[in-house]
Formats: sequence, structure tokens, C-alpha cells
Amino acid sequence: MITCDFCCLSAEDRKWLLYENEYWLVFFADKQDYPGRCIVAARAHRESLAQLTQTEWLSLKDITDALEQLLKAELGATLLNWSCLMNDAYKAAEPQPHVHFHVRPRYSSPITVDGVSLSDDAFGHHYNNRREDKMDPADRERLYQLLKQKVGLYFKK
Amino acid sequence: MITCDFCCLSAEDRKWLLYENEYWLVFFADKQDYPGRCIVAARAHRESLAQLTQTEWLSLKDITDALEQLLKAELGATLLNWSCLMNDAYKAAEPQPHVHFHVRPRYSSPITVDGVSLSDDAFGHHYNNRREDKMDPADRERLYQLLKQKVGLYFKK
Repeated sequence: MITCDFCCLSAEDRKWLLYENEYWLVFFADKQDYPGRCIVAARAHRESLAQLTQTEWLSLKDITDALEQLLKAELGATLLNWSCLMNDAYKAAEPQPHVHFHVRPRYSSPITVDGVSLSDDAFGHHYNNRREDKMDPADRERLYQLLKQKVGLYFKK
Repeated sequence: MITCDFCCLSAEDRKWLLYENEYWLVFFADKQDYPGRCIVAARAHRESLAQLTQTEWLSLKDITDALEQLLKAELGATLLNWSCLMNDAYKAAEPQPHVHFHVRPRYSSPITVDGVSLSDDAFGHHYNNRREDKMDPADRERLYQLLKQKVGLYFKK
């Protein structure tokens, strides 16, 4: 039985989709502990990076480039922290890991974008996986809408 | 002035080289907090994933595939945690980030390879960035030599 979260996306999950193509889905993360945090997930069920096809890998390059440009240009991110871990899947008795990347923008100094304050009190240090998500739901929605409107400037049609 | 660690590798750094090609260097990490931990670094000075060329990106696919196979087959790793962060570079007044990936093998159950005990007491959870490196220097050398001998089976000549 398929219980993989990325193969069984809910309407709530899909609500935060920023971009999709034939191979990848880019979401505005539910947890905005690092403002602008996104998740890049393979459309097909691939259990590790080695299972990605050459075509998927080439498309991932387009995605990483576009997302970096989007988050730097529109949110003022200084750099992005990329990670592909998939540890959580292994908590299950029958693990079904699905390739996805966590993308955490990091900010060298506080910035305000469309009225939303973006700050990073540990810039220059490893992200804190247990950092509290302090973003107001309305701010999350505002930031998502702002990015969604700009996606077409950076991502391929 | 170039102070980038990856552009100014010391003899001690190069001693732990597992594999290199025209675009990438693969090191057995100095910190073996997660046994088998490796670092994959771009040969050229690229400051973010978006700066990698298409050729470098394609070569990286070969590297990720080979390293995953090597660490799973030879060390019994269950999965690999990949991260590309580059936060440390931003501690400097003039940051010179250089694209590199930390590769942490994770083990679902303890295993002994060539007399070296590999275990992971937090399998299924995010890696601990401050985990103590408990590996004996002699074990580190043994594990490096074991992998070095096997590299040719997995990586392109």
C-alpha cells in the first residue's frame, strides 16, 4: 500500500504549490521557520538520488537555478541551504522514501518584503531543525502569493 | 585574496581524497561522526548551485550515483543524507562560498566492516550537526583504505 506523502498529496498540500513541470513539484513549505522555505519534490516515486533519471536530473538543474534566482531576487535571500535527507520515511515499518529537497533561504540581515519581516538570527551557522515557526498565517499567505506571481519570471513555462 | 578552503587544499586534505574527475573531488571527511561521511566538492570555484555548469551538473549525477552505491554496498549504509549549505563561508568578512556537499551515511542497524563498528543511534531522525566524532584514527584510516580500494568498482575511470 502506498502511504508516501508525496505520492498522496492532499488538497491542502497542493494549495501551496509554487511551480510544477513534468518531473518536479515546488512547494512553499508548510513550516516557514526559515522565511521563504520551499520543498522541491520529484513527481515520480524515486527512493534516492541514484534513482533519478538523467532527464529528471537535468530538469532539477533548471529548478535549482530558478528557485535560487526567485528567492534571492524577490525575498533578498543571501544564500540557500539545500538538503536531501529522507530520514522521516525510515520511521515507518516499510519505508517509502521519496526524493525531496528542503530549501531554506538564509538572510545576512533582516529585510521586510511586502510588509513581512524576514530575519535570520543564526546567519552563518547551520540551520536549526527545531527552529520555531513564528510566521503569522496571513504573512505566509502573502509571501506565497508574492512568489507565485513572480514564478513565471524565473521558471520555464 | 583567495582564502577559500576548497581552492587552497592542504596536503593533509588531499590525503583523504577518494576520487576526482575533471569537475568534482570526493573526500573521506575529516570528521567521521557519521561513519563513512564524505564531502563532494566542485573543482572550480562555484559560489552556489546555480553557478554550476550543465557539464558539472551532469558529472555530479555520476558522482552521487557512484557514491551511493559505494557506501551502500561496501559499508552497508541504508541511506545517505545529502546537504549543500555553505553557511560557514558567511562567517568571513568577504565570503567565498564554494559548492560542496556533506554526505552522511545512515545505518538502520549496527554493522561491523573490516573490524570497524558503524552505528547510528538516531536513525530515522535528522542528523545531529554536533554529534561527537568517536572514530579512532586507526579505524578512520582503515575505512578510508577499504573504500579507496573499491572506488574503481563504482566510479568512472
